Amino acid sequence: MVDPSGGVADAAALIDSTVARITPVDGTWIERARDRQRHLTKPEGSLGRLEEVANRFCGIQETLEPTAANPRIILFAADHGVAAEGVSAYPQSVTSRMVLNFLDGGAAINALAGANRVELRVVDVGVRAMLPESPDLVRRRIGNGTENLAREPAMSRAQAAAAIGVGIGAAAEAADEGCRVIGIGEMGIANTTSAAGVAAVLTHRPARALVGRGTGIDDPTLERKVAVVRRAVGRHRPSPDDAIGILSALGGFEIAAMCGACLGAAAERMPVLVDGFISTSAAALAAVLCPAVREYMFGAHRSPEPGHGALLGIIDQPPLLDLGMRLGEGTGAALAVAIVRSAVTAFREMATFDNARVPERLGPGGHRSANDHRPTRDRTTHGP
Amino acid sequence: MVDPSGGVADAAALIDSTVARITPVDGTWIERARDRQRHLTKPEGSLGRLEEVANRFCGIQETLEPTAANPRIILFAADHGVAAEGVSAYPQSVTSRMVLNFLDGGAAINALAGANRVELRVVDVGVRAMLPESPDLVRRRIGNGTENLAREPAMSRAQAAAAIGVGIGAAAEAADEGCRVIGIGEMGIANTTSAAGVAAVLTHRPARALVGRGTGIDDPTLERKVAVVRRAVGRHRPSPDDAIGILSALGGFEIAAMCGACLGAAAERMPVLVDGFISTSAAALAAVLCPAVREYMFGAHRSPEPGHGALLGIIDQPPLLDLGMRLGEGTGAALAVAIVRSAVTAFREMATFDNARVPERLGPGGHRSANDHRPTRDRTTHGP
Repeated sequence: MVDPSGGVADAAALIDSTVARITPVDGTWIERARDRQRHLTKPEGSLGRLEEVANRFCGIQETLEPTAANPRIILFAADHGVAAEGVSAYPQSVTSRMVLNFLDGGAAINALAGANRVELRVVDVGVRAMLPESPDLVRRRIGNGTENLAREPAMSRAQAAAAIGVGIGAAAEAADEGCRVIGIGEMGIANTTSAAGVAAVLTHRPARALVGRGTGIDDPTLERKVAVVRRAVGRHRPSPDDAIGILSALGGFEIAAMCGACLGAAAERMPVLVDGFISTSAAALAAVLCPAVREYMFGAHRSPEPGHGALLGIIDQPPLLDLGMRLGEGTGAALAVAIVRSAVTAFREMATFDNARVPERLGPGGHRSANDHRPTRDRTTHGP
Repeated sequence: MVDPSGGVADAAALIDSTVARITPVDGTWIERARDRQRHLTKPEGSLGRLEEVANRFCGIQETLEPTAANPRIILFAADHGVAAEGVSAYPQSVTSRMVLNFLDGGAAINALAGANRVELRVVDVGVRAMLPESPDLVRRRIGNGTENLAREPAMSRAQAAAAIGVGIGAAAEAADEGCRVIGIGEMGIANTTSAAGVAAVLTHRPARALVGRGTGIDDPTLERKVAVVRRAVGRHRPSPDDAIGILSALGGFEIAAMCGACLGAAAERMPVLVDGFISTSAAALAAVLCPAVREYMFGAHRSPEPGHGALLGIIDQPPLLDLGMRLGEGTGAALAVAIVRSAVTAFREMATFDNARVPERLGPGGHRSANDHRPTRDRTTHGP
């Protein structure tokens, strides 16, 4: 596990070594998975995106027995100095209060994780208020909230690298503890401001097109938020090729940590479910550090935030769900666990046409295909 | 339970008495649910469609403790005489073989029901082949497959009423056995032909705009299927106001049974998850018999079949999911169980702003709203 107080060189080395371990997903496993799909008792392609999901799990996990066992949402929480600009509908103290709510089991993510049998891990990467000791709270604090990005860089490059390292460590820990898929989520009042800034730098689009209403701000607050993002991007001018520079300029600690969690998951050959708008800003930064990481990602839920589409274009992973949700916390990822679990269960457990003795489709002349009823040694959990 | 060999009068009386028990969903419960949503620890409306789902469950179940307990997919299987016209990519024998596959646990619906903790009940409403005795197969056979709708009515009006009665009975049985939500699904080679015919009658659109590739037919088969639907609708000319007449003309037994299951669920104040294209044709027919039944329905999954959108317009329930699936069996409904379970769990288990001591949103002047931190007696499963 990364020590956030450790040296810059340590964090940078961890990022480099993690990126070095990420390889493109093996297309031959995906091809073998596609071939198996054709033999399962359903019309070809009729499970739609569930087939894509299962096939890519096979590629990532290098197996024809893909699994979503022990799914975990890693929820990174941190505060944002830019909250002082009045860009959120909620006071900054909501961040710490919501962390306490997570620990008490009273938030949306608690309910959705429970309903979908997903473990929740909450990581404090830099909440401003002091939180009480709790066995359910992982402390990996990089600072006492970020600085106000409207006036100065949100954090140092060293802090950005250390926060990425926290995410890498959290993903590695999940893998060590038996998780075979993770989801990323976040809590941090004002963090849609950071995410919109990240989107502006990465997509070269104007702030006006990317800034949304977040938790539900009114028109004057929206104008203020647009102005803050525009000025911050203009002032700091981070290079779109420099993920650490972007994080340093615009924050936040939790976005950096989620970026690291994506890298860490890919290095462990774990699929990662990318929650919504803010999570996708982190995923897009991970793709800047290592383009191949995108092959390990699954978009979980399409956010109504206007900047989400632009960021999704970078990771190239259209979300599985579109339910009009906009609260982060990993809620979309928790729901997406049900989809990916269904996808891999169907892949593993369905019978083949042969072993279920179901006739295959008629050929062009109305004849059955040649291999109808031919016995095979395809594995099935249900066959004779 | 309906005896399908019973008299016409019995089945008609059951339908009438069931429809008479269906009342519009109580708007005051929905309003109370909306009010409670505003106090839960999330930005207002931020759970999107999950809030709509939970609120409507409250209205249907007349409670502020909505539940999706003991969810059951009722899968109705039957054969279609129109398969003789060569309108499917699969031979008719696939229907019975797939029923055996359901009983063996090897089909997509078995995997998806298992992954989402949903019970599966398979009902034979008229599969042509003789199926072996099985404790897992409910026999409610209306006939030995329907007649060929291209040449004659698919069934008699008495059979249509009896098949609706089977569905009513299956829903009542589910309610008796503790199910608080059901999903409907189907298996029947060539049944997209019937469903497209139903859509043509109900929406007054041409067959060409409603007929799709079903399990994956080629161009010549598609042309044949369009011609069959066009001719059948033109020959039988059922009235769009006469659901039993439409079923009699176009089939099938499983569509009639699903229509009955929708009515039966509403009569028991149970939400019903409407799977895909064929299920929606049944749901639309139920709405012809009783418009209020629509308030008990939830669209589960958006089918790529071209006729689905038109039928969804009738039930006015946009699907929760859009994953490119097209295999029926109740697979979309099984996935939707995860969504509705999540929705009601969040509603029941989330803390309120007050009892979690989370500050509410800032007012227009940046002030907290008046009731911030005011103690209440709101129920929570997590609060002090």
